Amino acid sequence: MRIGVLGGTGPAGQAVAVQFAGIGFEVVVGSRAMERAEETVAALAERWADRRLALVPGENDAAAGADLVVAATPWDGLLATLDPLADALAGKIVVSMANALTRFGKEMVPLLPPTGSVTVAVARAVPRSRVVGAFHHLPAGPWSDLDHPLDADVMVCSDDREARREVAELVDRLPGLRGVETGGLGSALAIEALTPALLEINRRYKTHAAIRVTGLP
Amino acid sequence: MRIGVLGGTGPAGQAVAVQFAGIGFEVVVGSRAMERAEETVAALAERWADRRLALVPGENDAAAGADLVVAATPWDGLLATLDPLADALAGKIVVSMANALTRFGKEMVPLLPPTGSVTVAVARAVPRSRVVGAFHHLPAGPWSDLDHPLDADVMVCSDDREARREVAELVDRLPGLRGVETGGLGSALAIEALTPALLEINRRYKTHAAIRVTGLP
Repeated sequence: MRIGVLGGTGPAGQAVAVQFAGIGFEVVVGSRAMERAEETVAALAERWADRRLALVPGENDAAAGADLVVAATPWDGLLATLDPLADALAGKIVVSMANALTRFGKEMVPLLPPTGSVTVAVARAVPRSRVVGAFHHLPAGPWSDLDHPLDADVMVCSDDREARREVAELVDRLPGLRGVETGGLGSALAIEALTPALLEINRRYKTHAAIRVTGLP
Repeated sequence: MRIGVLGGTGPAGQAVAVQFAGIGFEVVVGSRAMERAEETVAALAERWADRRLALVPGENDAAAGADLVVAATPWDGLLATLDPLADALAGKIVVSMANALTRFGKEMVPLLPPTGSVTVAVARAVPRSRVVGAFHHLPAGPWSDLDHPLDADVMVCSDDREARREVAELVDRLPGLRGVETGGLGSALAIEALTPALLEINRRYKTHAAIRVTGLP
C-alpha cells in the first residue's frame, strides 16, 4: 500500500511521512510546489540515511493518487487543498489530522469551524471519500523522531466503521501508538478541541502531555 | 470546610456527595424539594451505614450557603437553578461538572451552548463566583460506589488559577482520582465534549473507559 501525505513538507506531514515510511510503506510527500517536496525528501533521506525510507516527492495531486491519503495541510489551507482533489480522492480513505486553534490572550483555545470540526469540513469537501480523523494529539516535533517513539493513544473517529477500524489497526503498527476507535465524526469536535487543552496542560506542567484511554480490553 | 451540592439528589450529585463525605467533609445534599433531599440522604445513610457520612439534606439555597459548591444539576436545568443563587454564590468556588450531550442517530454527540461550553455559561450566570470545571468524565454510577474507587484523571479548568489549583488539590484527595490543571475556561469546550466521545469508546469496546494524562511530573 502506498500512502500519500498532502502538506507533507510541514512539521505534521513530515512526521507522518517518516513514521509510515519507517514501518515499510512507500510514502508520497506531497506539496503545492514540487521543489519543496524534493527538498523535504532530500533532507529526510539525509537525516535518516541508515533507514532507507521509501519517500517519494510529489505535488499534492500525486500524493492524492496513493491508496490511502493523510491530509496534513494546516487547517486554514486544508479545504483549498482538498477541493480540486475531490475526484482523485473518491473512494479512498482520507485521514484528517488538522486542529483549528489559536492563541486567545495567553491561552491556546479551539477555533470552531461552522461544521463543528475540521474533520467534518473535510468530509464535506471530499464527500465521496472515506474520511477518518486521527493523529490530532501528537506533537509534530517529537513524533518526527524515529529514534524516540511516542507513548500515546490515537483517537480515531469516522462515520465509516470499516475505514475507522482499518486506520486504528494501521495506527497500532506505528511505534509506541495505539489506535482507539472513538465514535463517528460527531466525536471529532472533542478530539480536535482537546489539542489546545493538552497544550494548556503542557504550559502549566512544563511537559509534553499525552492521552491514554484506560479500561480498554 | 462544608461542601454544598446543587442537584445533589441526581446520580452525579449523589456520587459527588458520598465521595466528599467519604473523605470527611460535611456535605449539604441540595435539591429543589426538601423532601427529595431528605429521601436521598436517608437512602445514602442506609447504604453506607458503616461509614457515618456527614450528609445533610437541604434545599438548593442551603447547599449554596456552603464554603464550596458543586453544581451537579443536569445541564438543561442548570442555569435556572443558578440564576437565583448568584448572590449566595458570590466569592465562592462553584464547580461545574455538567456535560451537554444528546443522542444523534446512534451516536452520543456534544451539544454546544451558545457560550461554547456549559462551564462558560455557568461563569456568566454567577459572574461573581470563582467558576471551575471538573468531574466531567466520571461515570456517575461507578463513581458513587465508595467500595470501588475509580482510577481516573480529572481535568480541572478555570480562569481563576488559585481556584483551579485548590480544586485540583481537592480532587487529589478523593480515592483513585488525580486533578490535572487543564487551562482556563477556554478548555471547557474540549473537556465537556470529550464525555460523549468516551461514551462512544464505551459503546465500541463494551467497557468503562477513562482518561489518563501521561507525561506529568
